[in-house]
Amino acid sequence: MSNPSLSLPAIAPPDLAARARALRRLDSLTKPRGSLGRLEALAAWYAGIAGTETPEPPPCTVFIVAADHGVAARGVSAYPREVTGQMLANFVAGGAAIAVLARELGASLVVVDAGTLSAVPGPLDRRIASGTADFTLGPAMSREQAIGAIRNGLALAARLRRGEVVIPGEMGIGNTTSAAALAAVICRRAPSDVIGRGTGVDAHGLAAKCAAVEAGIARNGVHPDDPLGLLASLGGFEIATLAGVIIGSSARGCAVVLDGFVSTAAALVAAALAPGVSPYLQAGHLSTEPGHRVALAHLGLDELLSLGMRLGEGSGAILALPLLRAACATLSRMATFAEAGVAG
Amino acid sequence: MSNPSLSLPAIAPPDLAARARALRRLDSLTKPRGSLGRLEALAAWYAGIAGTETPEPPPCTVFIVAADHGVAARGVSAYPREVTGQMLANFVAGGAAIAVLARELGASLVVVDAGTLSAVPGPLDRRIASGTADFTLGPAMSREQAIGAIRNGLALAARLRRGEVVIPGEMGIGNTTSAAALAAVICRRAPSDVIGRGTGVDAHGLAAKCAAVEAGIARNGVHPDDPLGLLASLGGFEIATLAGVIIGSSARGCAVVLDGFVSTAAALVAAALAPGVSPYLQAGHLSTEPGHRVALAHLGLDELLSLGMRLGEGSGAILALPLLRAACATLSRMATFAEAGVAG
Repeated sequence: MSNPSLSLPAIAPPDLAARARALRRLDSLTKPRGSLGRLEALAAWYAGIAGTETPEPPPCTVFIVAADHGVAARGVSAYPREVTGQMLANFVAGGAAIAVLARELGASLVVVDAGTLSAVPGPLDRRIASGTADFTLGPAMSREQAIGAIRNGLALAARLRRGEVVIPGEMGIGNTTSAAALAAVICRRAPSDVIGRGTGVDAHGLAAKCAAVEAGIARNGVHPDDPLGLLASLGGFEIATLAGVIIGSSARGCAVVLDGFVSTAAALVAAALAPGVSPYLQAGHLSTEPGHRVALAHLGLDELLSLGMRLGEGSGAILALPLLRAACATLSRMATFAEAGVAG
Repeated sequence: MSNPSLSLPAIAPPDLAARARALRRLDSLTKPRGSLGRLEALAAWYAGIAGTETPEPPPCTVFIVAADHGVAARGVSAYPREVTGQMLANFVAGGAAIAVLARELGASLVVVDAGTLSAVPGPLDRRIASGTADFTLGPAMSREQAIGAIRNGLALAARLRRGEVVIPGEMGIGNTTSAAALAAVICRRAPSDVIGRGTGVDAHGLAAKCAAVEAGIARNGVHPDDPLGLLASLGGFEIATLAGVIIGSSARGCAVVLDGFVSTAAALVAAALAPGVSPYLQAGHLSTEPGHRVALAHLGLDELLSLGMRLGEGSGAILALPLLRAACATLSRMATFAEAGVAG
């Protein structure tokens, strides 16, 4: 059998000249220098992505990608696996947190089934299989399946326009266990450093997660220098698809706002496969999941919000969208000292 | 001369039954319990104020109140006093940060002159005098003037509706010095604990601020048990007016989102005059000004955002408005487990 290969799009660096012009403009606006704090850094970062020092507040698309995980059979979640498919229907019907928040904040929501146990009507069908295999017994998926999911993600990003905001959201019972396994290997940390209670397991479930991650790493002979093999061994279909979304979005010149631990695990994989994604990433919200801080530090990111959330779905990231839009509005629309006749 | 008296409106407590219903409803929604973190506490807090467990995302009014300060003659600011009036014109013209942010976030902006050096056209005229006196030499204003400014604030709040969000914003060269003096007395802390660089003074200006606050406290014989006398001695017209806005807004059943150190100093005065305001207060953003943390702790408040901002104007608080609206949207519009057919 031939070794399948993955062809990834080129990612151009952001426009550093536009970023520099934005920084100069910020210093000319009617406020003490630097007094908008993190909002100024955010505005300059986005100006580099959009290629202009007067960007409009951008539109936003949330990709909420769901899949099931074989490792869920190991008792790593407080919820039964059926909940993945039930929540997928809830995303489509508009009753889930991310659906409500996307409407409230004027973002588009794209609901994707990347491989739940049984298909439900409504989501985009990007199913690789009916859930991954249990990675404590062997690879979660084949390399071909990992490549297929990444390609699905790249294709989802293909119609995005430069400067759009992309939020990678996810749902999948058991997926913080997969994220922890990936993060432990990529960040070269002990599993216990990156494992947490997810959506709310008890001490018994926590021990089961730790045992599953240790078994998965030992069983599959993974290595951080082979991110595709690592993804196939320990990943989930939603994580692989979102890694493709992140790479594709960066290649399209979009601003990617990461959510919690699972979406950041997808970014770890994306950055390992395509380091050019890094300047397109922003951390929207710091999850209570302990591995999230480890993963963000590995990516060199500081969160914008820290509200104690631990839901996933993109729900933390989307709360940072108004901050990014506000940053653009101040950069583009505030008066300069000269325009306003204010002593600088 | 008779001792002028101040009559304050009654402030009813929030609706604790509605708050309790909101907490129960939050536990029935399609998410793990507590997984929206701070957003859930915010939603329940607002439900108590609005009196319903299914509140709509609320409208918001920013009161941006400006005044000049006699103590500015002591070299406590990096900017000349003329900037207060120039910025007032910039608020009216729409070029200032808070004006841009209010438009972006769909909030109303009410611009008020509470006593700048020279009146500019455009703002509401609620001028008490052309700036306060230098409080290092005697009281900043008379008790009658303090009462007049508070009454102006109460009147500004008189047309608000229950559940509206109110953001007390301010502008006034020298006003972090006044805020520091008030906070030191009310929070019973040394001036050096609550003094910072404001909009950006150097070490020389910082020393001047500290000396001015110490002199003002010593010269005026102030005491925390006489908040009105304290306000008259060390306050500013914008701070007194905003104290009235905060009391009046609480009496109308509005949700008050505090901004930085100066708006929080107004809240310290308001809470000293009318303790019933406390349950109506939320801290939008933690300023880099060191006294802000002291003042918020005194009020028992934790900030929603910490973005390193130090502009004032209400610019930090208004960035928390989308969080409050998002909290309402999730509480009111998410599906319950029963409605969505999801296993709880």
